[in-house]
Amino acid sequence: MNQTITSVQGIYCEGIQIGLKNTGRDLAVIYSETPALISAVYTRNKVIAEPLQLSQKHLQNKEAQAIVVNSGYANACTGKKGREVAEQMAKTTSETLKIKKEDVIVSSTGVIGQVPPIDTLTEGIRSCAGSLHNTENAGLNAAEAILTTDTMLKQSIRHIQLNDKTITLSGMAKGSGMIHPDMGTMLAFIFSDISIEEETLDQIFKQAVEQSFNMITIDGDTSTNDMAVIMCNGQAQNKPIESSQDERYIVFQQALEEICISLAKQIVADGEGVSKFIEYKVINASSEKQAKQMIRTISDSSLVKTAMFGEDPNWGRIIAAAGRASVDFNPEEADLYIGQYPLMKQGQAVNDYIEEVQQLLKQQQLYITLDLNQGKESATGWGPDLTIDYVKFNAEYTT
Amino acid sequence: MNQTITSVQGIYCEGIQIGLKNTGRDLAVIYSETPALISAVYTRNKVIAEPLQLSQKHLQNKEAQAIVVNSGYANACTGKKGREVAEQMAKTTSETLKIKKEDVIVSSTGVIGQVPPIDTLTEGIRSCAGSLHNTENAGLNAAEAILTTDTMLKQSIRHIQLNDKTITLSGMAKGSGMIHPDMGTMLAFIFSDISIEEETLDQIFKQAVEQSFNMITIDGDTSTNDMAVIMCNGQAQNKPIESSQDERYIVFQQALEEICISLAKQIVADGEGVSKFIEYKVINASSEKQAKQMIRTISDSSLVKTAMFGEDPNWGRIIAAAGRASVDFNPEEADLYIGQYPLMKQGQAVNDYIEEVQQLLKQQQLYITLDLNQGKESATGWGPDLTIDYVKFNAEYTT
Repeated sequence: MNQTITSVQGIYCEGIQIGLKNTGRDLAVIYSETPALISAVYTRNKVIAEPLQLSQKHLQNKEAQAIVVNSGYANACTGKKGREVAEQMAKTTSETLKIKKEDVIVSSTGVIGQVPPIDTLTEGIRSCAGSLHNTENAGLNAAEAILTTDTMLKQSIRHIQLNDKTITLSGMAKGSGMIHPDMGTMLAFIFSDISIEEETLDQIFKQAVEQSFNMITIDGDTSTNDMAVIMCNGQAQNKPIESSQDERYIVFQQALEEICISLAKQIVADGEGVSKFIEYKVINASSEKQAKQMIRTISDSSLVKTAMFGEDPNWGRIIAAAGRASVDFNPEEADLYIGQYPLMKQGQAVNDYIEEVQQLLKQQQLYITLDLNQGKESATGWGPDLTIDYVKFNAEYTT
Repeated sequence: MNQTITSVQGIYCEGIQIGLKNTGRDLAVIYSETPALISAVYTRNKVIAEPLQLSQKHLQNKEAQAIVVNSGYANACTGKKGREVAEQMAKTTSETLKIKKEDVIVSSTGVIGQVPPIDTLTEGIRSCAGSLHNTENAGLNAAEAILTTDTMLKQSIRHIQLNDKTITLSGMAKGSGMIHPDMGTMLAFIFSDISIEEETLDQIFKQAVEQSFNMITIDGDTSTNDMAVIMCNGQAQNKPIESSQDERYIVFQQALEEICISLAKQIVADGEGVSKFIEYKVINASSEKQAKQMIRTISDSSLVKTAMFGEDPNWGRIIAAAGRASVDFNPEEADLYIGQYPLMKQGQAVNDYIEEVQQLLKQQQLYITLDLNQGKESATGWGPDLTIDYVKFNAEYTT
């Protein structure tokens, strides 16, 4: 069964090798038979790569029909020359596919500060865009071509039934291969054949990104090239979802959130130098926003992350990180669990389960829960540990 | 020449070993012959250790005469029992020294979640407070007793001349021995025989802390026990400094800032697992606050820190970190230097000095400057690299 992005009706793609990186495919083109509605979320970094700036311009009308992605070069901090390359990538894609230049999204990931070779790209795009397929193989090739130092393809797929129509959602992503974190850009491309109204899609997608990609951290750094896009081409021909009042809204929302969370978790698990996958929950907070903020601070703490790597039930580090999250809570009412075992209750140490927790910590998937006992809101996030390999890889990489 | 805290007139102290840690002195008592004016800055962590809560209460009247510090136990997350121990530490100190209990500052540093042994502490405090001296030896003993995994004593001293009076300022600190970062509390105790008005001291001290201890980062974590205190006993008998209009204000301010910056830099340099000491400058920013915020984000970036450890001129990481600092600036106008060499000018790569920078990066002290070219304000901060040893030490420490 086709588990790739081409499982969505009307989506064609290909991924090829043109020599921008040392090994593997490094150029992908994805195309929708019909112009598609787009929602997109970009890096919050002030430094925005040239292709991303162009894509933002092209997406102002919320419509696109193709995506061209290269790995190997981020095309960031490249100024006028870099802008020309990005423009040329859009132009070549549009000419080959006979679509409007403004309907092409351009995305690059790789080393910062170097201008990608324009001739190689132009020739490559012509060849790639000239041989698109809607096969599983083509989907796998595209999913490979967007990777940098990732060790695994990252894909997710869902089918939902809306009245008599089957809707497909599919996504592919790349994450933070930790050897070359200049290449640590997060890219997520999601596709669906659903028909949906523009603002409703924005609302659902923003929410899904908030619960998934924004709840993972590898090392707290964000890239100049980050982007998550959803492309909906309406080919399932369902009656359009037009508001959050529509009972089908929640069905689509859940499926999209599942796709995004699945891709986000795959990104964390594939961070190079990662030995543990940790799920963080903050429960019974007074607001979801505060719960999320606390999770981000804890999951980003080097001390917490090294403790998990060392399989050390050193819960003081978790509490200290929670305490500096700028969240209003009463430490003397908080409970802390690793797995099902309490290590702190009402702000005071519980020493009864240290051995059990030590055993638990040997596992690869860990669960940390902080119960603030102050409200009814909760949040979940994911992160890796901090390992010797992480430092080694990042230090040994030489520009 | 006495380079310790006892070089300040009227300051007596001692540091002894009572067995709270495996090795070395672990209890210090410091005493001022006369009640002293206090200014203090505490951790911003929501989780505040029991002794720190007590000290905050005692310092409401801005007056104190003694400080008792133990290492080995943080006495944090210890609830009612922990509060009793802190109270008892103040009580024993006050009884032995025949001063008011409310004039004792209590400070603890060490493992979170364990109640320190009260009998050992009581006996130890009686013995220590009963044998105070104003000698260099006593100063060295006290400076040692506040350490945890630090490998060096951290002290600084300045003499200034105000009219016909010589004023002494002296300080000692402990930092983040990175083996046991639960013990990574930052403590700084500063003393002066100056006579100064209360609000003026607060103003000067807050400013000095802002420029020093708040501009260093080891790993972004803050402790439940952090505290910086200055104790001014007026024994130099100068005419009190009563406002920032006084021309002596700036003389004292500069000396105090020098002491605090010196101690802060010693803390960074002594972080275990640290191989590089990095000075960060953001210049020509539109506000000092923004410059500081950007320095904190850059100096806290794992990617920047591993690049420095790897002696890698990977400047894209510095720019990407600057970009996510939530500071308003135009990347296309910014210049970046390592040492005196530009790596980026006006937002674009400069590839002329890569070899020179590679040579520079082999040194132990590194200088990174980001010129925003947008205003007139600047800031300076300090931080370490992120090393394999850091992860090793932090992972191998088992509670």
